[in-house]
Amino acid sequence: MTLPTLQTVDVAAGGVTTPRGFRAAGIHAGIKARAGALDLALLVSDQPATAAAVFTVNKAQAAPVLVSKEHLRKSGGRARAIIVNSGCANACTGDEGMANARRMAADTAALVGCAQEEVLVSSTGVIGVALKMDRFGAGLPVAHQALGYDQGDKAARAIMTTDPFPKEAAVRISIGDESFAIGGMAKGSGMIEPNMATMLGFVTTDAAVPKALLDRALREVVDDTFNAITVDGECSTNDCVMLLANGASGVAVTESTYDVFADGLRAVCLRLALGIVRGGEGATKLITVTVNGAATSKEARIAAKAIANSLLVKTAVHGGDPNWGRLVAVAGRAGVEFELSRAQVTIGPILLFENGRPHDEAAPEAANYLKNDDIAIAVNLGAGSASSTVWTCDLSAEYVKINAEYRT
Amino acid sequence: MTLPTLQTVDVAAGGVTTPRGFRAAGIHAGIKARAGALDLALLVSDQPATAAAVFTVNKAQAAPVLVSKEHLRKSGGRARAIIVNSGCANACTGDEGMANARRMAADTAALVGCAQEEVLVSSTGVIGVALKMDRFGAGLPVAHQALGYDQGDKAARAIMTTDPFPKEAAVRISIGDESFAIGGMAKGSGMIEPNMATMLGFVTTDAAVPKALLDRALREVVDDTFNAITVDGECSTNDCVMLLANGASGVAVTESTYDVFADGLRAVCLRLALGIVRGGEGATKLITVTVNGAATSKEARIAAKAIANSLLVKTAVHGGDPNWGRLVAVAGRAGVEFELSRAQVTIGPILLFENGRPHDEAAPEAANYLKNDDIAIAVNLGAGSASSTVWTCDLSAEYVKINAEYRT
Repeated sequence: MTLPTLQTVDVAAGGVTTPRGFRAAGIHAGIKARAGALDLALLVSDQPATAAAVFTVNKAQAAPVLVSKEHLRKSGGRARAIIVNSGCANACTGDEGMANARRMAADTAALVGCAQEEVLVSSTGVIGVALKMDRFGAGLPVAHQALGYDQGDKAARAIMTTDPFPKEAAVRISIGDESFAIGGMAKGSGMIEPNMATMLGFVTTDAAVPKALLDRALREVVDDTFNAITVDGECSTNDCVMLLANGASGVAVTESTYDVFADGLRAVCLRLALGIVRGGEGATKLITVTVNGAATSKEARIAAKAIANSLLVKTAVHGGDPNWGRLVAVAGRAGVEFELSRAQVTIGPILLFENGRPHDEAAPEAANYLKNDDIAIAVNLGAGSASSTVWTCDLSAEYVKINAEYRT
Repeated sequence: MTLPTLQTVDVAAGGVTTPRGFRAAGIHAGIKARAGALDLALLVSDQPATAAAVFTVNKAQAAPVLVSKEHLRKSGGRARAIIVNSGCANACTGDEGMANARRMAADTAALVGCAQEEVLVSSTGVIGVALKMDRFGAGLPVAHQALGYDQGDKAARAIMTTDPFPKEAAVRISIGDESFAIGGMAKGSGMIEPNMATMLGFVTTDAAVPKALLDRALREVVDDTFNAITVDGECSTNDCVMLLANGASGVAVTESTYDVFADGLRAVCLRLALGIVRGGEGATKLITVTVNGAATSKEARIAAKAIANSLLVKTAVHGGDPNWGRLVAVAGRAGVEFELSRAQVTIGPILLFENGRPHDEAAPEAANYLKNDDIAIAVNLGAGSASSTVWTCDLSAEYVKINAEYRT
């Protein structure tokens, strides 16, 4: 038997409704104050889908997170719909918040015609404010009416808070004559840090994927994508990535095609994750931080995260300053094995530090390189052979402005 | 036997030359480019002093740190002088940097008339640039000539980099008819974070203190003061706190008066540490973060540091936004025991969150309180009875500006 021909193609302008059998809607319900701002997204699979999800590790988990976890457990990992509002996180809202999250699911289930536990719930926005349930109640039927196989973009816009642009991606994977698609949408854009605690992501596929493989793929991929980005080191009360597989393509993913599926999922999630970083609050540059020469993979990730979260590194990149000294200083304080005499620092293709000494003659070239929008930084710790890559953005005065004035 | 009367009095405008037998100088040697900027400080004890020091835990330790550690070891904890330059960190400067740090000590020893290992060396400024030894060589005799018993303020100014003002403090402690003084100076003001890795501090006393008690006092006090402040979570390659006790007052500290000495040292170090935070890059407010109700002291400190380093918290305070939601979110992601239903958040005297719900009616009062320059934030984790206090400053657009343009 010869292996089937595998081909992955990016779907331009694709999103959560690119896979067959998924309808979406994004409408203005009035949860956000600004007139006309989209704030309610609904995603429905025509047939029950296998569902996997990862949630924030924050100990102050919001009501929708608690309800979605409960529903996934009760349904055994099946879902028909996801209901998402922006403008209000429904976090730290006590019993009333739990009741509201449950009602979001129950009302959605009634309209879609499924069990309550087949609805997942998600919210994003200000913490500690009660959800305006009258607005939700009036908006939900409008969203249900608006559901369409071409409305993924509207849904992607309805989950945004301070995001400067919607984040969508999709790929089509051909295996011989058959094909299936994976599509997704995500929102940022502050409070972005690892451990899936950081943003909202919703991914669909029309492949049929057994629950165990779906869980495995999501966990593996999230670790390399959504958990490898950071904007400000924060981890929110609400965030999650949810993945629905409805089988509408007729293609079934098995152990033998698992890698193809996971690669496609990785491509979609990485695109979404990098979109979140690019759209980070006040961001002007995407920074790829690679740490090599670490004693272990875990230490490589720790050092890469320390560099990516360093205010001094982020402000230096913002200012176009090839300040390798700050990179060495952060690597040195990251709490991992580090050998200064064997360490190396590279900004783009330019080696700035090795053998314990700088290459100052290369500084002007590096300063010129830092004028690009996409910046690569590599630090070799000189302590081993493990590596890790994470992504972050620069820190601008605009970030401070956005976050100092968020609620005012 | 009755206990002696103990009295601690702040010495207004006091500093490193308040204790008897210490002379200091601060001059312009030309290590900093700006004409007339003070950049070389010399501190000399008339008689050999017992010396204690704590150094950065950064693994990329600068040459002066390595040389000072070596000298303390070789001298058995005795020192006559401390030589400090600002404008150049002499870090990541390889063998040449080590040779330069050694020469700083040797040249100083020759002028003061002591052994090389009785001189401690410290540098602060840009990383990876060679120290201009010709400037140092020309400046050192000038500094030696300028030494005076009233020149502590000049020395405090000569160790500054981006600091907006010098940091000095002193106390006089009376025990019966006798008295001794403790005085100090420090510089910040970016790269300020715990683990003594964060700033320069130099403290003198004219008490005679046995080496073991001096070491113990410095370690205990630094943990509650310099290691409890943070400006940006960074930890530098150079930083240290050095303490010299020369006995010139004739008062000897013993086990029975240890607590008095440690309290005085704590008062001086806390004043210096808070000065560093107040003078943090771009800082407009001093924030005292207290975490109560933690499972352990260590967890209390971890949570307090997480809050103090949170960009979202620091920008909210900057913007005068009583955003208790961000405080709950950071406490929840700090990786310590946290029970949302028992948690409390207080800003100043105003309770904003308890029993899982906000007190939104108090928000205007809290917003008004946030107009003060000194802000107190308290978070109860609801997980135990341990507590910890740390200090930080707000994050302003000015911080970004300073650090984006530091070398340009």
